[in-house]
Amino acid sequence: MENIAYYNGTIAPIEQMRVPMDERACYFADGVYDAMFTVGHVPLALDDHLARFYRSAKKVEIDIPMPIGELREMVLDFCRRIDSPDAMAYVQATRGVGPRGHAFRFAGGKASLWVFVKPDVLDPMDRDYRCITMEDTRFLHCDIKTINLLPSVIYTQRAEERGCDETILHRGERVTECAHSNVHILKDGALRTAPCDNLILPGITRAHRIAQCRQMGIPVIEEPFTVREMMEADEVFFTSASALCCRVREIDGKSVGGRDLELIGRIQRAAWDEALCEAGLSGGR
Amino acid sequence: MENIAYYNGTIAPIEQMRVPMDERACYFADGVYDAMFTVGHVPLALDDHLARFYRSAKKVEIDIPMPIGELREMVLDFCRRIDSPDAMAYVQATRGVGPRGHAFRFAGGKASLWVFVKPDVLDPMDRDYRCITMEDTRFLHCDIKTINLLPSVIYTQRAEERGCDETILHRGERVTECAHSNVHILKDGALRTAPCDNLILPGITRAHRIAQCRQMGIPVIEEPFTVREMMEADEVFFTSASALCCRVREIDGKSVGGRDLELIGRIQRAAWDEALCEAGLSGGR
Repeated sequence: MENIAYYNGTIAPIEQMRVPMDERACYFADGVYDAMFTVGHVPLALDDHLARFYRSAKKVEIDIPMPIGELREMVLDFCRRIDSPDAMAYVQATRGVGPRGHAFRFAGGKASLWVFVKPDVLDPMDRDYRCITMEDTRFLHCDIKTINLLPSVIYTQRAEERGCDETILHRGERVTECAHSNVHILKDGALRTAPCDNLILPGITRAHRIAQCRQMGIPVIEEPFTVREMMEADEVFFTSASALCCRVREIDGKSVGGRDLELIGRIQRAAWDEALCEAGLSGGR
Repeated sequence: MENIAYYNGTIAPIEQMRVPMDERACYFADGVYDAMFTVGHVPLALDDHLARFYRSAKKVEIDIPMPIGELREMVLDFCRRIDSPDAMAYVQATRGVGPRGHAFRFAGGKASLWVFVKPDVLDPMDRDYRCITMEDTRFLHCDIKTINLLPSVIYTQRAEERGCDETILHRGERVTECAHSNVHILKDGALRTAPCDNLILPGITRAHRIAQCRQMGIPVIEEPFTVREMMEADEVFFTSASALCCRVREIDGKSVGGRDLELIGRIQRAAWDEALCEAGLSGGR
């Protein structure tokens, strides 16, 4: 089948799926989500993503109405069942269904679980990416993967209108992250990336790249960097579930990076090897 | 009928209404809303609320798929048709339906319109209200009435857990507004209230109370006040579509206000007179 979706016990192609109007997703963005990409029908870093999903839910006091093991099996099953070997697998939990009212007691007592898998592909690593910058005006809970995403929608739209791929956000001089990915720089042979505080999402792909860099003996500095440091870095790249390691060569129309192609090439190859290995398409790296 | 709801052309009781899973409300909170309360089947300040609704939509570039005059007639009709003379009328516009993707091009090209009217009552003015305070951690677009409301859900829940009615928010020392209302103080015979910037919603009821105070010769100072100034004010009150003028007598367990009962009583009577007049239940004030 082309795609497959689940909502509170019902399974159907996503275009046929309906949810109650009184879903708290609809009125309050009262929910959290996670997303991962597949290679050869295998969702990458599935366990990491699901662990973060349950952590996000716990942070906003939503009790996901399915044990993690059962959800894991459902996601794996959906990824196998759709036609496309390349797909996005998406999971979401909301506080439930009930008459509109802010407090939890209106939520009907049972959280909602949403899942879908649809065709999608990883961002290719054999091209350069172009970004814009914008002031980060989001809330102060960016460490929680909630569906309060209107700012990210606008940031992404602005990038597209300028023919770019992503929007890099900053609070004053400090770079935080992108509209839907983490951003990192290479400088003097080291990886520099913002620390995990309430201003950035603790990216799964970010963590994997950091772990690989450490394994390869590349120093990792988890400290914030400024817009200026980014513009002057040896390389700039972003990561997300769909972006294993995407190198940025233009920001706000100015050329950036391109000064340590050897190092970013090593990081990209390690990222791809890891994905192939996890998908069982390679003997390992 | 008990309640009535509309979504993109379909009309039914709200419990029967369904929306597509691929609604951008569900994944991105990609929408805006407004709400008003009825007295005797008449929605108060309807034109003000609808004007703000269309302004909110314009700010996030959503094109509401119905002329304001037609929506006005629908809301009035729904308010008349339901059994309860006291109700909440709710309008919402989202960017549309389409496969999940941040940029506008995924939205299917046509915005969604949501309306419902359900029984609800104004917050009574003949009682005292209790509040808590919390740090305001929301985004920097609080002037737009979006459905990115998870922070307000949490703030409201915290108030309820402590047996309180509202949560007053502050950024550092500066009081901004409440989880779902504006907050004001009376001091030395004047009304003091935060100015309309990106940190507060430009409340319709706020504007009506300000206009009435000016008409009554009560000085109005639109300047931010601090938590300390609020705790030491002569009176503290909050306003919203459901709260015409609700006086606060306790904040974080400490007694506040109660030092200018005559003035707040005048403001409350004027508010109620205006509501009755608008509902056609009084000869005017």
